[in-house]
Amino acid sequence: MRTVAGTIETALARLFGETVKVTGAGRTDRGVHATGQVVSLSTGGRFPFDRLTVAVRGLLPVDLSVCETAVVDPGFSARFSARERTYIYAILNRPAPSALMERYAHHVARPLDLDAMRKAGEPLVGEHDFRSFASPAILQTEAGCAVRRVRCLEIEPRGELLRIAIAANGFLHHMVRTIVGTLVECATGRRSPGEIPAILAARDRSAAGPTAPANGLYLAGVRYADGYDSFAEPPILGR
Amino acid sequence: MRTVAGTIETALARLFGETVKVTGAGRTDRGVHATGQVVSLSTGGRFPFDRLTVAVRGLLPVDLSVCETAVVDPGFSARFSARERTYIYAILNRPAPSALMERYAHHVARPLDLDAMRKAGEPLVGEHDFRSFASPAILQTEAGCAVRRVRCLEIEPRGELLRIAIAANGFLHHMVRTIVGTLVECATGRRSPGEIPAILAARDRSAAGPTAPANGLYLAGVRYADGYDSFAEPPILGR
Repeated sequence: MRTVAGTIETALARLFGETVKVTGAGRTDRGVHATGQVVSLSTGGRFPFDRLTVAVRGLLPVDLSVCETAVVDPGFSARFSARERTYIYAILNRPAPSALMERYAHHVARPLDLDAMRKAGEPLVGEHDFRSFASPAILQTEAGCAVRRVRCLEIEPRGELLRIAIAANGFLHHMVRTIVGTLVECATGRRSPGEIPAILAARDRSAAGPTAPANGLYLAGVRYADGYDSFAEPPILGR
Repeated sequence: MRTVAGTIETALARLFGETVKVTGAGRTDRGVHATGQVVSLSTGGRFPFDRLTVAVRGLLPVDLSVCETAVVDPGFSARFSARERTYIYAILNRPAPSALMERYAHHVARPLDLDAMRKAGEPLVGEHDFRSFASPAILQTEAGCAVRRVRCLEIEPRGELLRIAIAANGFLHHMVRTIVGTLVECATGRRSPGEIPAILAARDRSAAGPTAPANGLYLAGVRYADGYDSFAEPPILGR
């Protein structure tokens, strides 16, 4: 299967003349987009740095591109040096689906009550055990802590689209998509916004709503300790 | 090869229980998008009209959808009853290409001089023989008149995107794409905006610039005598 990391590694190997291993800042499952992904790598190969960005672009397929490149300290890791990640989820909320937006926004035909959705989102901000909003299979293999700190959760209509932005120090697998699936249930009246604290407390995936589809999700930005932020708005949500 | 018309005809045939032939308002070559396409058809088949839109959508692939349906007079033709068509061309004007916009906007890396582009566009407004801006092969087979009336040509920056909208009573094959290709030459200094009247007068395709790629082009709207207008903005250009 073609992966983002593998495709970049193949391109870089051609430029550097040796095998290259990249580390990505955040997961992008199949169908998920990234406007602000960051990867880091270490190489002994030589290539003129000022021509590197354009040279890599030239070796990548049209659905994958590189915005910029930088030289970093030897200890830097796109994944482990990250302080905050921002994911954005786009929902097309109107009766008719859109052929042109199908891959870039999740279509919800029923009207969404944004007040209910915002009320449901509030208890998720802060430091919580997000086990109820994570893919259980991955949590087992990572055997890890499910506590994450959500700094902000914004819900903003943009025309027929709804923009949900969540910034946190880290995300569990499927965390954004499960939060969105649950918020949509609250916004359509299937579930009360008041249930969210109990869902968090349950620490059980079955307490939360469905996992929203991958097509609406974007890894939009990663912020590092030195203040660098790769944030870029998804094109469909405007400038 | 899969075509928009053929795909719609197959879906309608299933609903109406008989072969259906649709007439489209405007051409959409391979890679060209449509947000405001209109098709008309006549059928003896019976299907509850209030459920038709949703039923057709359910039979179409995800990259093709129907916004609305209407009952029209027997003499109506989506093509021949049209009074004006609007095509929009989207250009991404920045050094870096965009993986997410690749199918939806034409990438031009060099800075564009919008004043020069607008100056070049002005002489195209009005009634002219647009033979210099049309695919010669099609003109021969259509053996037709190449005079068209362009009502307006708007050039508007939207962030990193450039929106070029052209409304006319009709368009020759490749007319918008050849106009855009020529305007881009004027906006990058390869050609002087003052050359446009001579290009029109030449009535020769070789006098104009290159045909811009299909990916930036949208059939955005069709207006009819009764005032109905199917116009819908391309998603990438915002709301």
